[in-house]
Amino acid sequence: MLHIRGGDVVTAERTMRADVLCGDDGRILQVGPDLETPAGCEVVEAGGLLVMPGGIDPHTHMEMPFMGTIATDDFFTGTAAGLAGGTTSIIDFVIPGSGRGLLDSWKEWREKATKAASDYGFHVAITEWNDQVHRDMGTLVEECGVNSFKHFMAYKNALMVEDDTLLRSMKRASELGAICTVHAENGDAVAYLQQDLLAQGRTGPEAHPVSRPPEVEGEAAQRAITLAGLLGVPVYIVHVSTEQAAKAIADARMRGQEVYGEVLPQHLVFDESVYETSDWLKAARYVMSPPFRPRHHQSSLWGGLMSGQLHTTATDHCCFCANQKEAGLKDFTRIPNGTPGIEDRMSVLWHYGVKKGRLSPENFVALTSTNTARIFNVYPRKGVIVPGADADIVLWDPDAERTISAATHHQNVDYNIFEGMTLTGLAQTTISNGKIVWQDGDLRAVKGAGRYLSRSALKRAPRKPL
Amino acid sequence: MLHIRGGDVVTAERTMRADVLCGDDGRILQVGPDLETPAGCEVVEAGGLLVMPGGIDPHTHMEMPFMGTIATDDFFTGTAAGLAGGTTSIIDFVIPGSGRGLLDSWKEWREKATKAASDYGFHVAITEWNDQVHRDMGTLVEECGVNSFKHFMAYKNALMVEDDTLLRSMKRASELGAICTVHAENGDAVAYLQQDLLAQGRTGPEAHPVSRPPEVEGEAAQRAITLAGLLGVPVYIVHVSTEQAAKAIADARMRGQEVYGEVLPQHLVFDESVYETSDWLKAARYVMSPPFRPRHHQSSLWGGLMSGQLHTTATDHCCFCANQKEAGLKDFTRIPNGTPGIEDRMSVLWHYGVKKGRLSPENFVALTSTNTARIFNVYPRKGVIVPGADADIVLWDPDAERTISAATHHQNVDYNIFEGMTLTGLAQTTISNGKIVWQDGDLRAVKGAGRYLSRSALKRAPRKPL
Amino acid sequence: MLHIRGGDVVTAERTMRADVLCGDDGRILQVGPDLETPAGCEVVEAGGLLVMPGGIDPHTHMEMPFMGTIATDDFFTGTAAGLAGGTTSIIDFVIPGSGRGLLDSWKEWREKATKAASDYGFHVAITEWNDQVHRDMGTLVEECGVNSFKHFMAYKNALMVEDDTLLRSMKRASELGAICTVHAENGDAVAYLQQDLLAQGRTGPEAHPVSRPPEVEGEAAQRAITLAGLLGVPVYIVHVSTEQAAKAIADARMRGQEVYGEVLPQHLVFDESVYETSDWLKAARYVMSPPFRPRHHQSSLWGGLMSGQLHTTATDHCCFCANQKEAGLKDFTRIPNGTPGIEDRMSVLWHYGVKKGRLSPENFVALTSTNTARIFNVYPRKGVIVPGADADIVLWDPDAERTISAATHHQNVDYNIFEGMTLTGLAQTTISNGKIVWQDGDLRAVKGAGRYLSRSALKRAPRKPL
Amino acid sequence: MLHIRGGDVVTAERTMRADVLCGDDGRILQVGPDLETPAGCEVVEAGGLLVMPGGIDPHTHMEMPFMGTIATDDFFTGTAAGLAGGTTSIIDFVIPGSGRGLLDSWKEWREKATKAASDYGFHVAITEWNDQVHRDMGTLVEECGVNSFKHFMAYKNALMVEDDTLLRSMKRASELGAICTVHAENGDAVAYLQQDLLAQGRTGPEAHPVSRPPEVEGEAAQRAITLAGLLGVPVYIVHVSTEQAAKAIADARMRGQEVYGEVLPQHLVFDESVYETSDWLKAARYVMSPPFRPRHHQSSLWGGLMSGQLHTTATDHCCFCANQKEAGLKDFTRIPNGTPGIEDRMSVLWHYGVKKGRLSPENFVALTSTNTARIFNVYPRKGVIVPGADADIVLWDPDAERTISAATHHQNVDYNIFEGMTLTGLAQTTISNGKIVWQDGDLRAVKGAGRYLSRSALKRAPRKPL
Repeated sequence: MLHIRGGDVVTAERTMRADVLCGDDGRILQVGPDLETPAGCEVVEAGGLLVMPGGIDPHTHMEMPFMGTIATDDFFTGTAAGLAGGTTSIIDFVIPGSGRGLLDSWKEWREKATKAASDYGFHVAITEWNDQVHRDMGTLVEECGVNSFKHFMAYKNALMVEDDTLLRSMKRASELGAICTVHAENGDAVAYLQQDLLAQGRTGPEAHPVSRPPEVEGEAAQRAITLAGLLGVPVYIVHVSTEQAAKAIADARMRGQEVYGEVLPQHLVFDESVYETSDWLKAARYVMSPPFRPRHHQSSLWGGLMSGQLHTTATDHCCFCANQKEAGLKDFTRIPNGTPGIEDRMSVLWHYGVKKGRLSPENFVALTSTNTARIFNVYPRKGVIVPGADADIVLWDPDAERTISAATHHQNVDYNIFEGMTLTGLAQTTISNGKIVWQDGDLRAVKGAGRYLSRSALKRAPRKPL
Repeated sequence: MLHIRGGDVVTAERTMRADVLCGDDGRILQVGPDLETPAGCEVVEAGGLLVMPGGIDPHTHMEMPFMGTIATDDFFTGTAAGLAGGTTSIIDFVIPGSGRGLLDSWKEWREKATKAASDYGFHVAITEWNDQVHRDMGTLVEECGVNSFKHFMAYKNALMVEDDTLLRSMKRASELGAICTVHAENGDAVAYLQQDLLAQGRTGPEAHPVSRPPEVEGEAAQRAITLAGLLGVPVYIVHVSTEQAAKAIADARMRGQEVYGEVLPQHLVFDESVYETSDWLKAARYVMSPPFRPRHHQSSLWGGLMSGQLHTTATDHCCFCANQKEAGLKDFTRIPNGTPGIEDRMSVLWHYGVKKGRLSPENFVALTSTNTARIFNVYPRKGVIVPGADADIVLWDPDAERTISAATHHQNVDYNIFEGMTLTGLAQTTISNGKIVWQDGDLRAVKGAGRYLSRSALKRAPRKPL
Repeated sequence: MLHIRGGDVVTAERTMRADVLCGDDGRILQVGPDLETPAGCEVVEAGGLLVMPGGIDPHTHMEMPFMGTIATDDFFTGTAAGLAGGTTSIIDFVIPGSGRGLLDSWKEWREKATKAASDYGFHVAITEWNDQVHRDMGTLVEECGVNSFKHFMAYKNALMVEDDTLLRSMKRASELGAICTVHAENGDAVAYLQQDLLAQGRTGPEAHPVSRPPEVEGEAAQRAITLAGLLGVPVYIVHVSTEQAAKAIADARMRGQEVYGEVLPQHLVFDESVYETSDWLKAARYVMSPPFRPRHHQSSLWGGLMSGQLHTTATDHCCFCANQKEAGLKDFTRIPNGTPGIEDRMSVLWHYGVKKGRLSPENFVALTSTNTARIFNVYPRKGVIVPGADADIVLWDPDAERTISAATHHQNVDYNIFEGMTLTGLAQTTISNGKIVWQDGDLRAVKGAGRYLSRSALKRAPRKPL
Repeated sequence: MLHIRGGDVVTAERTMRADVLCGDDGRILQVGPDLETPAGCEVVEAGGLLVMPGGIDPHTHMEMPFMGTIATDDFFTGTAAGLAGGTTSIIDFVIPGSGRGLLDSWKEWREKATKAASDYGFHVAITEWNDQVHRDMGTLVEECGVNSFKHFMAYKNALMVEDDTLLRSMKRASELGAICTVHAENGDAVAYLQQDLLAQGRTGPEAHPVSRPPEVEGEAAQRAITLAGLLGVPVYIVHVSTEQAAKAIADARMRGQEVYGEVLPQHLVFDESVYETSDWLKAARYVMSPPFRPRHHQSSLWGGLMSGQLHTTATDHCCFCANQKEAGLKDFTRIPNGTPGIEDRMSVLWHYGVKKGRLSPENFVALTSTNTARIFNVYPRKGVIVPGADADIVLWDPDAERTISAATHHQNVDYNIFEGMTLTGLAQTTISNGKIVWQDGDLRAVKGAGRYLSRSALKRAPRKPL
């Protein structure tokens, strides 16, 4: 048992001085002021700290095979780094290889993930359409604890799906009580622009953002939302990075549509100038999709988070080291797309969100865990501090500072995109399933301690736009 | 003590099977599954019912002197009718008469309200600007439990304030930790159009909506929001009834501004056709400002409520009987503006919102009490069911039907605008401060049982639009 | 020679009392007040009439093979009907059959059109992409007088092109100085909805609008505009029928993009209620794509025309008789899509536009001929009354009334969608290439009198959105 | 007589190789290719030059008494400078002093303007409302050749009018066939912010833009447009400088409202950084209202000009020398507001508009003269090159460069805000009423040669938004 004493418990709704008692089963037993410490119970003094639900990162790619290589953070190292930053659950992606079925792929990923140090679940990507896919979606939802599917509108000739597949998958997901998530970029346009740029001899990483301009994301987001609206089903747009996509989401919501948007902290703080350097590797390290944008897009992302029109924060954590990035030395389209970030998401959001006066601590909790838990139907097991919930808790020091560096981070990758940034706000202690796994810089992550997060179906009544 | 047993407790966050135990001090003692009934404790069986926070109506005008007459529901009859409909708190308005100071007026209203059957608080209207007003605002916030001020942009030569006064009051309120609320209609334009219509001989109630077209509200809302944005202060728009105002609010929120919008159920269900009748009295009874609108505006109001860009529901409850309405027989501008509604707000919202699939029960709670409690800083004393909160609770029957009629309602007025409407969802039992005051059609409201709801200041950091 | 005496010459810029003298070569010789009548010259007294450029209809389908049948108005009957309504030029569409090359198809259409009674040109449809298409586009622009290409985003598995083809064609067209036009409806979504409706047993024409809701057009318009914007090339959206598409065009134009929109008069006056009838044939006769919309969309179309954000009017004239429409008796997706209209376009626009106070006579000229002539680069040969221009002139009686009926129209089809409508404003006399071809109800159209309208390339500098 | 030989005549509609013959009465006699030169006629060889209508500047303040001083360019020096830049007409403003009637003021201004070197007309400002104003508006329109009135929504306690006055004036103007123009800034907000800034000790010119942020203009534009829409009358917004105002105009136009917007070239090329200098005088020289804006607003202005949603270009030419500007040394609110520009408007617009690929030469003519002539009803006397029009013509060299400098300009003021800018495109020759008044750098302006431009009423049917 664990008694967290004297902290300010923060949930998405409010902040109150309260103790938290965690049971041996890894669940929260009691929340209230001045609880008595049971005999033999470990005590954590939380005086001056905020006691918040552990973070949930709904967008990670641990040890993902992609673009001819494999992401370097595996399920253990990646989740361990998450714990060091206050994140206690992830939802990763099962990406079926060509010819592989959904179920086989899901099993493969489950196997890989057994080494995870924190709880984990999976979205499963739909990359083609046929009767087997239709059946497997049913099995995944009904028997495998999957309640969300992913669709790529980009990556032509690889993962991309046409609108027809998107419609069929949305319909099927809706019948099953699952939600569709979408990577919104117009893949035809990206492929065209990539070819065009290469033909012009523009082969460096600075061409990457040119090949995926903001309009390409705005268009695809608008399209995905329109298709979902036709069917009256919810849709979740991953890594919203542009004014256009944020506006498309907000407008649809004002028409009564159920649309959710996810933001990555890196899009909140970096702009396209990261690609303007003669240092190839430096620029290549920022190559991810969608890319970093002209600065004014950040206002729309903040506005969406502040107004409640964008809902979650994630990282798209996907690590590639220098030697991997160098596959694209002569051709930017071959640079493995991805940036690390699971360890720093919460600090970046606290610093630029709460510390800068844009978000309240309650908003912060909503955006780092609660909303995600609701949307993907693991609330109130996750995302809140109430009796019965999993004891995934972070003791947040709102005033402590740290300087981010690859030299000190726990992610298994040779750089940190936030390198050198000094931020206020950090996870002083992280508790996963009732166990202290990070405290004062000491990481005690346990390989395999994480459990599979089975997420059940959530039937929502179809709702056509008003 | 009172034990509410076997219900589904619904808060803005979630629904769970739980009992609620209310103490003799009128507060909630315990919330949890299968609580034991203390000896001597009264038991309410809530099987099959939803146990929700009692409604808060933040916009009522009990016994208000207005347009040469006085609204017929007084603080007792009006709050009693509220209890019959599940509403356990109101925030009414102190409207200083010309030449009367803010403090004197507040005292007068406090005196009038001592007869209230449920808890009550006050917004205080600012109708002019001078040093005394500046000082009195301070006293009201610091000593009198007032944390919100009201401003009329309409009612020229009566209550209307110019932009300069609005700016000064917003600034002052912000310093004090109070929030400004605004009746948004361009008073110059309304007065001009009224004169013009009368000059054309258009004197009947059907001219009322013509004198206050939707654009007049949209313009004023936009202006109020712009002024608040200049100062970086929050603003709350009362009775939003148009697409234009709803959009102005949503757009400002997406720019990171702190703006709130209130909706009246009558605007959700009636349109301008209510004025198209040869029955003068029937039309006159719908005369309120803002008036009922072309039907398409309703989509924007629903969209706002569904997306979280509009936040509260209220009634603008203000009762005038036939003989009072008839003051405007020859001149629609003399018809006392106002409609009843406190008794039916929650049923109308449940039926058209939850029953029709637009809102979840949790949304319903947020929109009828929680959001209001937060914005006006009485959360978590009101607006939630947790230990320590006031035991203002409604046992809601989601499936029961009733037909609204003036013949059976408890409001002290000779008509009901919802007359004849059959709605699903009603307050089966209402508990105010731990006492059952309404059960199965039996109203046990006690004159003077209501307490003054002192609301303390809430300092918010100024926040300029992004 | 022909002397048009005493009329008010109206151009897109202004109206002035002036005579017009037409030469024997079919061109305008002189325009000015009180011209002398040359010896032997025929005189037309235009007192009280408006003398305007003959109409140009940039969207017709004469004798088109489509959906297993052939449109009944051929190039002679269709253009003759146009002359009776004041339209003196058309731009029809070459639609390559599967496996047919662009050039062969263009030749085939040229051959068919030799019987035309008025001047005619062609847009050529791009329905697939390969090197031959790339080459043929060059030949068509450089040698065949084609400066515009058409793309269908709908009609899946038939005419529909993917975004990739659209991008390549736009790029190629831009290099050549041609402009791309787009039928904007999401073909995947339409096909999905059609299948879904049929599966539900909804086989009647009332299902047609349900299978192509407004959002499907708005989405595709937005997408086409985005793609054009990526390349910095102009784009022309045919038959804009929705608020969403109109707004997408207006927004893009405000970003500095060169986008044009075309409106059909039928969308200005009919709404979706035309499908709500138990008379199968009546509903089937209104089956065209895009279908008729909820009424509020009409405001956006008018707003676009009035503000200059929508630019041309056309008819999509495509005639199918009862026996042809009946191919879809048991399956609405087999009803040949199309409605007649070339004879009535100008009257409908005058009546509902000019007569109702929305448009000036100068706007009318811009919208019926001048803008079209500019966009498709036949200005000032067509679309204006100046010396040197073709003598395609209509003498418009702004006050005369007529009642539209299939019993009296000149179109070769057994119904008129405007049947029974009484309109003010009609072509009293039509002059084509200097010859009177319609006067006071007497149609003197000459088979084969029309000439091929060779339209040359117009290089525009690429212009990325601001 | 004057024969302009061999140029390319450019109008708002098209460009064509043509000669222009100007008569001794100062009007254009003939326009056409290869005209014969009458005996005794002066010839101007225009080979390689563009022959365009002389510019019209609809917004100047010559010798205006303002903020305790008088603008230094008088009607002679100011119009002469205009001629040197290709501008051959101005519309200046009659600003009634307090207590002065409209008619007296108009007479006073007429008297002052007799020295003008080019044609001139007047807008008359309405700064209060009473019966005399109502009557005088009638006299001005019916007898004095005034068809436009100006309203200041800013300059509180000086020129500012309330909404009520705006409504009454708009209504009256509409009855008379005049158009209302509006300076759109919320005067209450500006006054409040000025006071607040001074109270904070922010007294320098860098506080000027802070006291009039973009939102203040957007709000007022929206309000003016709303009021005009209520009455169904046209409205013209002067010096649009923000995204908000441009969008308000475009949106209203898409609703079918008749709204026009004017842009100043200085807002197209300068941004708020002009105030960020330690050189007080340099910053003070840029003090005008509305001030220079964050750079992104420029895209909206260009977008408006390119799409046809903004219509005219003007200068707000109002000259104050260093010693005058210094009246505000200790208080930025006392710096006389105004910048020069009449001499450079056309070059700036050509260079940044046409040369940079945003505008065509035809657009340029529309934006520098034609649209203005139409809106203020002096078309086709001005704004076009046709027989009968005034021979106000500029021979434009599209390729010549010049560097702007106060050392060489003809404006009577000791600085030029465009100082040092090298622009392509200049007036090689200017012809005013058939006389060459500027050629190859030789200014031959004649004091008093300008004529009063009497502008007649233009009745437009009231048009409520769609």
